[in-house]
Amino acid sequence: MREVFHQSLEEVQARLVEIAELVTTAIEKATTAFGTSDVTLAEEVIEADSTIDDKALALDELAIEILARQQPVARDLRIVVMSLRVSASLERMGDIAEHIAQLTRMRFPERAIPKGLRSTFTKMGRLDVELAHALTELLRTQNLDLADQIRNADDDVDELHIAVFEKVLSDSWQGEAGATVDATLASRYHERFADHAVSVAKKVVYLATGDWTEAITQP
Amino acid sequence: MREVFHQSLEEVQARLVEIAELVTTAIEKATTAFGTSDVTLAEEVIEADSTIDDKALALDELAIEILARQQPVARDLRIVVMSLRVSASLERMGDIAEHIAQLTRMRFPERAIPKGLRSTFTKMGRLDVELAHALTELLRTQNLDLADQIRNADDDVDELHIAVFEKVLSDSWQGEAGATVDATLASRYHERFADHAVSVAKKVVYLATGDWTEAITQP
Repeated sequence: MREVFHQSLEEVQARLVEIAELVTTAIEKATTAFGTSDVTLAEEVIEADSTIDDKALALDELAIEILARQQPVARDLRIVVMSLRVSASLERMGDIAEHIAQLTRMRFPERAIPKGLRSTFTKMGRLDVELAHALTELLRTQNLDLADQIRNADDDVDELHIAVFEKVLSDSWQGEAGATVDATLASRYHERFADHAVSVAKKVVYLATGDWTEAITQP
Repeated sequence: MREVFHQSLEEVQARLVEIAELVTTAIEKATTAFGTSDVTLAEEVIEADSTIDDKALALDELAIEILARQQPVARDLRIVVMSLRVSASLERMGDIAEHIAQLTRMRFPERAIPKGLRSTFTKMGRLDVELAHALTELLRTQNLDLADQIRNADDDVDELHIAVFEKVLSDSWQGEAGATVDATLASRYHERFADHAVSVAKKVVYLATGDWTEAITQP
């Protein structure tokens, strides 16, 4: 039974990694499309999101099947419950990448990134991509150094998020209301994406340390 | 064992209702504070959010204990897993009420609701409160008519959300960038609150109909 359970956990882990890879591709394409007004790339992200949703749903079914058939207890049980939460966070990260792609499509052929914020959003986008890569590796390897890296990148994203508002509220801001709306939404999406990555990272750290309360705190 | 399981489920349900009541109070106070620039009321919402977080956490612990001790299968198992997702959504709804309160506090003594959007936000706030009440009753009574009511109110919130953007992007909009940021964020918060209510309602409908795929779709 232990043997079967461990095979099941490996399957869960492999599937989480697979979904994280799809999310990484989504945020890479979404932030690139957002930066370059590439509407074709944006459409790709929007179309691909249903694959992430389907895979998250299939993973939930697998987790429920494991609970039913193998009736894990104690730490094993928490690992399975945690995987349900991780899949929910990854699915949400995919949705956010889709939102960034939708902003790009909505503004096309205009640029979605307002003038004066190009370099800020380029940095935020790069950090979100970096976070997604680190998260995929963390899920694959359980190397906890990556969790620290994710937390640090999230701090950087938070600083840039504040910088966006400072810019928009400064005297030098010359954007129309539309540009202000875009900057506000895009910045919020980038920030939430990073929050979810931290939330998943905390859950993986829990696997190593057993600190459950910290792990299930919402992003 | 069945008897014990049913008592456990009743306990889970009672706790979900209790959390939903706290969320209802939070959104009532938050939207009132937002509409009237009542910073004291806003502070109450911000302080009370940790109670919601704690109760959601305690409910998760109870659900995990039920899984470990009573090893439910089939539909019983899905009910317990679903309760974990409902508690996560309710916790998130509490966070969103807190965000609305924080916007209020941030702008005080100025009004957080930009001019020209007062009546739109009053309606959105009322709908979010109505949704929260209906959701609490739905969790308490499993009366599925309430789920339809929640879906309809969410449609109304979505229309108002679009109306906010139409207003902000219209020629008649005279708000400064700060007002545009506030309108964008506040509208997004009100809309997400309603999305989460629909997501919980779908899960309760699942209890009655068995349509699981629909039930675990993310808000």
